[in-house]
Amino acid sequence: MPSPPPDWVKALSPAGPQGSELLAQERASSNINVEKLSELLHTKEFLQRQKQLVELLQPEKVFDKSQNHTLGRVERLQRSLAKAKRLQQLAEQHQWSMEELHAANELIGEPTPYGLHASMFLVTLREQGTPEQHKLFLERAAKYQIIGCYAQTELGHGSNVRGLETTATWNPDDKTFTIHSPTLTASKWWIGSLGRTANHAVVMAQLFIGGKNYGPHPFVVQVRDLETHQPLENVYVGDIGPKFGYNTMDNGFLLFNKVKVPHVNMLARFSRIDKDTNKYIRPALPTLVYGTLTWVRSNIVLQSGGVLARGVTIATRYAAVRRQFQDRDADINAGENQVLNYKMVQVRLLPLLASMYALHFTGRGMMRLYQENQQRMKAAASPGQDSRGAGPEELRAGADLLADLHATSCGLKALASTTAGEGLEVCRRACGGHGYSSYSGIGSYYADYLPTLTWEGDNYMLTQQVARYLLKSARAVLSGKSADNDTSRILRNYLDRREKGASFDVLENDADIVEAFAWRTAHLTFEALKHRDAEKRSWNSLLVDFWRLSTAHSQYLVVRNFFEAVSSPDLTQSIDSDTKTLLHALFRLYSLHTLEREAAEFFSSGAVTVRQITLTRTTAVMKLLDEIRPHAIRLVDAWAIPDWQLDSSLGRSDGKVYEDLFRRASQENPVNDLVFDPYPWNTAVLKNEPAKSKL
Amino acid sequence: MPSPPPDWVKALSPAGPQGSELLAQERASSNINVEKLSELLHTKEFLQRQKQLVELLQPEKVFDKSQNHTLGRVERLQRSLAKAKRLQQLAEQHQWSMEELHAANELIGEPTPYGLHASMFLVTLREQGTPEQHKLFLERAAKYQIIGCYAQTELGHGSNVRGLETTATWNPDDKTFTIHSPTLTASKWWIGSLGRTANHAVVMAQLFIGGKNYGPHPFVVQVRDLETHQPLENVYVGDIGPKFGYNTMDNGFLLFNKVKVPHVNMLARFSRIDKDTNKYIRPALPTLVYGTLTWVRSNIVLQSGGVLARGVTIATRYAAVRRQFQDRDADINAGENQVLNYKMVQVRLLPLLASMYALHFTGRGMMRLYQENQQRMKAAASPGQDSRGAGPEELRAGADLLADLHATSCGLKALASTTAGEGLEVCRRACGGHGYSSYSGIGSYYADYLPTLTWEGDNYMLTQQVARYLLKSARAVLSGKSADNDTSRILRNYLDRREKGASFDVLENDADIVEAFAWRTAHLTFEALKHRDAEKRSWNSLLVDFWRLSTAHSQYLVVRNFFEAVSSPDLTQSIDSDTKTLLHALFRLYSLHTLEREAAEFFSSGAVTVRQITLTRTTAVMKLLDEIRPHAIRLVDAWAIPDWQLDSSLGRSDGKVYEDLFRRASQENPVNDLVFDPYPWNTAVLKNEPAKSKL
Repeated sequence: MPSPPPDWVKALSPAGPQGSELLAQERASSNINVEKLSELLHTKEFLQRQKQLVELLQPEKVFDKSQNHTLGRVERLQRSLAKAKRLQQLAEQHQWSMEELHAANELIGEPTPYGLHASMFLVTLREQGTPEQHKLFLERAAKYQIIGCYAQTELGHGSNVRGLETTATWNPDDKTFTIHSPTLTASKWWIGSLGRTANHAVVMAQLFIGGKNYGPHPFVVQVRDLETHQPLENVYVGDIGPKFGYNTMDNGFLLFNKVKVPHVNMLARFSRIDKDTNKYIRPALPTLVYGTLTWVRSNIVLQSGGVLARGVTIATRYAAVRRQFQDRDADINAGENQVLNYKMVQVRLLPLLASMYALHFTGRGMMRLYQENQQRMKAAASPGQDSRGAGPEELRAGADLLADLHATSCGLKALASTTAGEGLEVCRRACGGHGYSSYSGIGSYYADYLPTLTWEGDNYMLTQQVARYLLKSARAVLSGKSADNDTSRILRNYLDRREKGASFDVLENDADIVEAFAWRTAHLTFEALKHRDAEKRSWNSLLVDFWRLSTAHSQYLVVRNFFEAVSSPDLTQSIDSDTKTLLHALFRLYSLHTLEREAAEFFSSGAVTVRQITLTRTTAVMKLLDEIRPHAIRLVDAWAIPDWQLDSSLGRSDGKVYEDLFRRASQENPVNDLVFDPYPWNTAVLKNEPAKSKL
Repeated sequence: MPSPPPDWVKALSPAGPQGSELLAQERASSNINVEKLSELLHTKEFLQRQKQLVELLQPEKVFDKSQNHTLGRVERLQRSLAKAKRLQQLAEQHQWSMEELHAANELIGEPTPYGLHASMFLVTLREQGTPEQHKLFLERAAKYQIIGCYAQTELGHGSNVRGLETTATWNPDDKTFTIHSPTLTASKWWIGSLGRTANHAVVMAQLFIGGKNYGPHPFVVQVRDLETHQPLENVYVGDIGPKFGYNTMDNGFLLFNKVKVPHVNMLARFSRIDKDTNKYIRPALPTLVYGTLTWVRSNIVLQSGGVLARGVTIATRYAAVRRQFQDRDADINAGENQVLNYKMVQVRLLPLLASMYALHFTGRGMMRLYQENQQRMKAAASPGQDSRGAGPEELRAGADLLADLHATSCGLKALASTTAGEGLEVCRRACGGHGYSSYSGIGSYYADYLPTLTWEGDNYMLTQQVARYLLKSARAVLSGKSADNDTSRILRNYLDRREKGASFDVLENDADIVEAFAWRTAHLTFEALKHRDAEKRSWNSLLVDFWRLSTAHSQYLVVRNFFEAVSSPDLTQSIDSDTKTLLHALFRLYSLHTLEREAAEFFSSGAVTVRQITLTRTTAVMKLLDEIRPHAIRLVDAWAIPDWQLDSSLGRSDGKVYEDLFRRASQENPVNDLVFDPYPWNTAVLKNEPAKSKL
């Protein structure tokens, strides 16, 4: 690493009011109780654990982050495996729960090659394996004696799971399955932890019995030798190469040339083959499988608030430290203005600040609903194992709710991850030039997050599921057979009031804001229904309408969840009334800013008038920016993201932005060890080095 | 590199219709004359030169691209300097023009450490130096005997050039300047080619004479020894570290501790110090300096079409090769549908396809205007050197037009670079999961392009300049003193018609589309004027309105330029009528899709009715998608981007998407040389290697 700067450089400080002073002023100008708000968001336990984990992890050299942005992929992947191993050692040593391991992983700030083993491989074995299979695979996997992955996506098929090409053919003679890749596009692709790390895979393959295709099923297949770690015979496996982000993960490919696995390797909790009759036994409870994806998507919604919070924390703190230009209307002798005072910056950052709170509360609401229902259904499904017992009616009600949750989770996953992903980029740009530096801490985090917009259901594809559900619900409402849930309620409500029209006072009444969003959803739903059922338009020609409909409905869900959270009695107990007022302001900012951006739909549905929209834009949103501005720093402080996790010069909680940028550039940057020969006629790139050694 | 795959893998092909067949079908289904359209876009000369350059460069090992996404920054930077040197050698050998060198650089596809020397350093010396200074600096720089950069931005100041902190103090005693960095934030920062390559810099510094500040001026300062390439005494210089992209460039920092330079080092074409009297001589022609930035921005507009074209070419070709799901309304036995047939994909890609044509023609129009005016002004300004001569009136008219061009270039730079940058990301996501692979060719190109949204005027900051100009023009129109240009025309037109209202037939009449966009600009201009002049609202409170206004005006300019281009008689001469019809469809798609996205402004300005907007969305845009769809592949083919430049598995002109993804992953991916030890209890990451050597 480069030698330290000369004394005359060390003696320099940033000009004008220091970053630390500016952040101190910001914090002094707000009366928000940061600690209470943090606890409301994360719980006291989480915050304590986070603090302990930072103290434990940060000093270890293996978790050093300083070269993350500089190293090539070969080196980064190796370091990441070293981190993963060390985390696993610590997990065993400290007997961490899954949550603790997850929290530790979040702090080190990158996906590791154990990622898919620790999540999807273990989860799939647990949820889809029989007790015998648990003994055979899960127990060893939990101890990392075997390392696995979840191999579903193929080179030619992502979203369309039914189109997968890998086959698993049942051989009645020797009671085995033959796993085979008939084409190049059948190659498993994008499989996390498979490229270099895993020695086992859960492979999703089309199950063929007696020439008949029973659709995709999960098979445990060993792919590498447990000792030598070399691929087994007739297995071709490797890493799929560099990506836009996520380069510390070894996403892999996998091809099989008629590889045989025994009967026990088909995960058989839900469906299986009877060894004796060679018959396929249908799954008893398809909805439970379906539940896992709902859970995964709900988690994405829950996490999206925190993802966005990283960008907003960095950009908001830096905008308070960075000063640029004088206010045009200010006294000529006034100093430069904090960038955060400019309305053009506020209108980009503060609605995102509101969004991170909105998404957090929405995700929480979803997870609560999901878990309650899952408990109920598990109890209902296993009367033998659970003394509470439950009848088929409860099971059906649970399945109904799960269908609603499924649609909800699809739409919200799309909206939340798009909001978080695109929001991070808005934050990066709001940091001006320095946002582009890796030391901003936003760029690579954004790049690592982006797959979330595509995986677990592409954000555009998913909107069809929401639309399908809403159309179905609307048909049920029209035929008088609607379910007893909120979706049906807003559709019925719209039909009841449609004649006399809406008159929501979105500027003065918070509950009316929620109703205006519900009205828009219902209006778009019945419009789409008319196109599809009455006008018989093709599904394809309506995809754009469906996407709009899903977005509208999901925005309604966020607005409703946020409103319920800030209106709940719990809130009044845990925080003071000033903070509560501010959370209401955040609710209004999120809602009205969204309303204004989607003005055309609100207007054409008749939910609000053009005059209301104009007032929203020119007055209400501007007033809310003024109201929230003084509390911006405390509102991001409350998210309590440790500096070590942020890993950002711009977002440091102490405001030492310029000192840190300078320190990293001059002291942690191996490029400054190079001495170039700059002249084109010398082929050598470096001084005193022959050219050939380089290329 | 990894060993080749086994024979059973080599024998595999992708399933179903092959990519090459699908692209052949696409090409067969359109009658567009690709060659003629290419020539219209790029000229025959450009296409020939491009072909020759690819043939020359591609075989050279130094320009190999296969490891670009894998290597670390230290290695990439060295390789990039090697490329830059080789390009310079070839440039001398083949006597390339600036355009040829630029074209070659575009083909190799990355910024190199010579980038700022070859552009801003040479340009500044040429445009702002005296003949004496040309002899002293420019001649040596042109021969690469000295390597330079342009050092303006500082750690604490980007957009606000007047706030720069570096000082240049005139010493009357020894006739020198003292260049000094008084604070840490005065450090030059982001300076391209400075980090490791340059030995000279044009430093922008506040000029102080006798204690008085005359504002920022350019000084040539040597920063490294010409022999040893070590920094000179009292100069602290280095690379600023890793970035989100652009990592093959050595952006640098630079601090001075009272470094003296002689009188001749202040670039003195426009303003200077009289050595004898120690007096400051004011610039004769400030507008000419101001012209350089206008040129730089116009160039960004011109290039933005080509930038977007890379993403659109890749995503459109891949969407024709990729098949996923059956059409829901199709026969059950139909195969999977080409992704490009889905309306949700079309509505994302085809408007961007239209945008790339729109921006290209707009950039061309601007460059033509700029160059014409510049010629005229140069002739007028140098009557001694140019026999044509010209009076002060011509000079004033030229300055007026330059002011209009300046505002135009600010707004269009912001709109065009935002459209291109964000459009690339839309293209990447439209490629689904594989868009995230580096082999898509979009991710790193997007990351390298992103600074364009911030540099040469941050895209949000710039909108204030447009608004200021429009307000000034509106005041002139109201006072009856408007200039004779299009901006004044549309403002006057609006005032004349405001009473009776607009009635533009945007669905049937192309000229009316242009007028509707003009109407919206004028409406927003007079609204903003009312807020500022009548209601006396603060500048800051209007920033969001100004941003909207600038965007609206810039969209009008694109729509107008595109309309003029597709309606020009030249077009009819060079292409057939079917192609011309299609270009009109692209014009309508760009315009109507924009109109629909900005519906609220069009409606509230009274430019169109709600009914027209609804019809635009549900009918007109959908019809245009159908109309353009069959020609999509030929329309991207016409852009004629060589495969080697695209460097994309997904965007290959031969459609061999899956074969290429597989080849690169398995054969060009050094990660596949690693053999991991996957178990957490072994600290060693690789098999047979002690752990310590890694960390």
